[in-house]
Amino acid sequence: MARNTQVAADHNAPPITRILAEYVAGHASRGWSDAVDHEAHRTFLNWLGCAVGAARHEAMEAALAAVQVLQPAPQATLLGRAEKVDIASAALLNGITSHTFDFDDTHLKTIIHPAGPVASAVLALAEHTGASGRAVLDALVLGIDVACRLGNTVYPEHYDRGWHITGTTGMFGAAAGCARLLGLDADRTAMALGIAASQPVGLREQFGTMTKPFHPGGAARAGLMAALMAQHGYTASPRAIEAPRGWAQVVSTKYTWNEVTDELGERFEISFNSYKPFACGIVIHPSIDACVQLRERGIRPEQIERIELKVHSLVLELTGKKEPADGLQGKFSVYHGCAAGLLFGRAAEEEFADEIVNRPDVVALRRKVVATVDDGIDEASADVTAVLTDGRREHVFIEHAIGSLQRPMSDADLERKFHGLSDGILGAQRTSELLAACWSLGTAADVRGLAALARP
Amino acid sequence: MARNTQVAADHNAPPITRILAEYVAGHASRGWSDAVDHEAHRTFLNWLGCAVGAARHEAMEAALAAVQVLQPAPQATLLGRAEKVDIASAALLNGITSHTFDFDDTHLKTIIHPAGPVASAVLALAEHTGASGRAVLDALVLGIDVACRLGNTVYPEHYDRGWHITGTTGMFGAAAGCARLLGLDADRTAMALGIAASQPVGLREQFGTMTKPFHPGGAARAGLMAALMAQHGYTASPRAIEAPRGWAQVVSTKYTWNEVTDELGERFEISFNSYKPFACGIVIHPSIDACVQLRERGIRPEQIERIELKVHSLVLELTGKKEPADGLQGKFSVYHGCAAGLLFGRAAEEEFADEIVNRPDVVALRRKVVATVDDGIDEASADVTAVLTDGRREHVFIEHAIGSLQRPMSDADLERKFHGLSDGILGAQRTSELLAACWSLGTAADVRGLAALARP
Repeated sequence: MARNTQVAADHNAPPITRILAEYVAGHASRGWSDAVDHEAHRTFLNWLGCAVGAARHEAMEAALAAVQVLQPAPQATLLGRAEKVDIASAALLNGITSHTFDFDDTHLKTIIHPAGPVASAVLALAEHTGASGRAVLDALVLGIDVACRLGNTVYPEHYDRGWHITGTTGMFGAAAGCARLLGLDADRTAMALGIAASQPVGLREQFGTMTKPFHPGGAARAGLMAALMAQHGYTASPRAIEAPRGWAQVVSTKYTWNEVTDELGERFEISFNSYKPFACGIVIHPSIDACVQLRERGIRPEQIERIELKVHSLVLELTGKKEPADGLQGKFSVYHGCAAGLLFGRAAEEEFADEIVNRPDVVALRRKVVATVDDGIDEASADVTAVLTDGRREHVFIEHAIGSLQRPMSDADLERKFHGLSDGILGAQRTSELLAACWSLGTAADVRGLAALARP
Repeated sequence: MARNTQVAADHNAPPITRILAEYVAGHASRGWSDAVDHEAHRTFLNWLGCAVGAARHEAMEAALAAVQVLQPAPQATLLGRAEKVDIASAALLNGITSHTFDFDDTHLKTIIHPAGPVASAVLALAEHTGASGRAVLDALVLGIDVACRLGNTVYPEHYDRGWHITGTTGMFGAAAGCARLLGLDADRTAMALGIAASQPVGLREQFGTMTKPFHPGGAARAGLMAALMAQHGYTASPRAIEAPRGWAQVVSTKYTWNEVTDELGERFEISFNSYKPFACGIVIHPSIDACVQLRERGIRPEQIERIELKVHSLVLELTGKKEPADGLQGKFSVYHGCAAGLLFGRAAEEEFADEIVNRPDVVALRRKVVATVDDGIDEASADVTAVLTDGRREHVFIEHAIGSLQRPMSDADLERKFHGLSDGILGAQRTSELLAACWSLGTAADVRGLAALARP
């Protein structure tokens, strides 16, 4: 029956679904700069390390046990594990593990974590089809471009309403990447995007539970299956993204279509991807960074009388926990972050283990941190002075933390992070081989060798 | 980072997720009237017939081909087909076929088609676990209750915004039904509902494409997997449905929580389920019904000079196509509907085949229909007079069409509809056996015998 209570709608939206489909199907392989292509390698490598690192996490154990009820075919690798499962389940499970530690990549304009949905789908499919490493990188760049451009279109209203944007745009990225990998033409790619449009995955209410990392995994699986269905003739609306009752207008009150079309094929959103050096909320990063630098100047914990920390008020509001009781609380304690930076020179997932947070030397050091608010300092900065027992003062000011777009992690930083995640799962030697396989992905005949290196 | 642009939110919502979890986990088996239990059989039977009828539809062929790329395990039956697939894929594919002809059931308060998501998930899981027929019926009643109560909570705003409510509430129904079937306690049932909450499936923009029937299928698969994951310890927010950034408040501006709690466990939403007698839009049903009754009075097409049809203006607005060119257009032609009713005494999927719509005697008869608008007649009614060649006038007034809550289809009507869908796929004899298995479902030791009857 006709209804009268209609939401205001844009009936004249440009053909966004078609534009993206033609782009994904038609853009030249490696049709971008060396910098973009290098970023694709970094994005892939960082995603892979995160997934390997969480391979034995309880979220993975629970999700894998559920998937194994399906008796899946051994088609594709689970990163960091010996089991193989069907490609849709591999997309799901690798998507979960890569986001489990909240340590993956971030498209800073939208807070999308783009590799989880896209790389998880693309690698699983490529392992099965035998696609080349080059094809995987192309699919990754284009898939991330589609997801992040659609994110730009609806951000921030869509996120503010309560959607976890990684999984509610990620299914487009996965569908686009897999459609590209399958060599679908623009018509079928549009159908893949259309089938994906009906399947946004993710609510912010889930933050703090295993369903948060489920979101990129679910989006990866949805996108991969959408591409397979489109390949076999399944249909969807050719205006599923932009129509008045299509995705954008249903999930957001903001939809700036030019975010999709501006410089399409010239500017690539993967260029704005960043990688977390520390496994905790981003507002603590400048303080940790400063303490790591103090350590690199040779300052030892036993020399320290006091750490004077000046930060924006938001930092203490979000992460002002003085006496964290466990690892999870440690992620919300700038005091613990500083102690970890000084003691270990890093703050990866291990430095947020319950045992570390409660270790006497860690507790003693964090109690020497005296934090004061200074709203003259930017949220993204930190001012840290170590007052030593001999009276000396060592000062570090961090304007932009390591991992920001202004100070990106170097390739060596990424490798160190990867080793920290993977050595305990695959061993240091195998991890080094896997890293080498990531850097040479663009010339690999297929991805099966790389996938095999990721199985213990 | 903290954001300021917040949507108005209800921070004091009752614990809806918990209330539903306790209900699903704790309500007594067959804890309802005989009438409710009979409705469960009717709902199941009608769903089954729809799925069998569409077993060879091109949507099924495309989706099955995609699923078969996964090399699925032969765990569960695809209704009306010889292939077996894993239980998650069976939930998906049977959910698709049961809605492919738009001929399934309707919860009239919300326009939810509830059996597609719930029965598709529950039957596939029960076939695998060996659950009893009684357990399947319990899961069906409770799953439909959860989906439709949550539908009542957000309808109509949620639907008006553009969500296809069948798939955006159906994952809750499937999760609830499967959690019940697995015997999960209230804690794990809440986790199943929570995991499902992140996965609404369906945009109204997809109407007219294969992605419309994908919605109940996708919801069935999502709910089944959510229950399996919860069973194995996967976690979600215990307030995933009602929290400010949970499902209801993210997907709707209306959320009337008492729709969940009022008479919970006493009034069952399956009691408001209805079944379509004709495979077309509901506004044509009274006119077809009237013509079927004229035929039953013995009136033959060759006797007819003219059919005078008086209907509400909305009927001609939505279905006023005078010369439909094919079957799909026939579904939007009250003229064709009248001709089918008079000629065949029915208007199932076959009567909307291209060949039928273009058959000379059908075309000749529909041209004798003269429709006039009378807004004194309700949208749900029709006034039809056959003017015969001998000058006689036969008049029928339909206040409520067959299939409405006021004039429900009889069990015999449902059986006839089922034969119409299934005889061409399974044969008449096997179809009769399958019908008998549906009626005796409550006493079946398991559902495997029934499932076997649904394979050609």
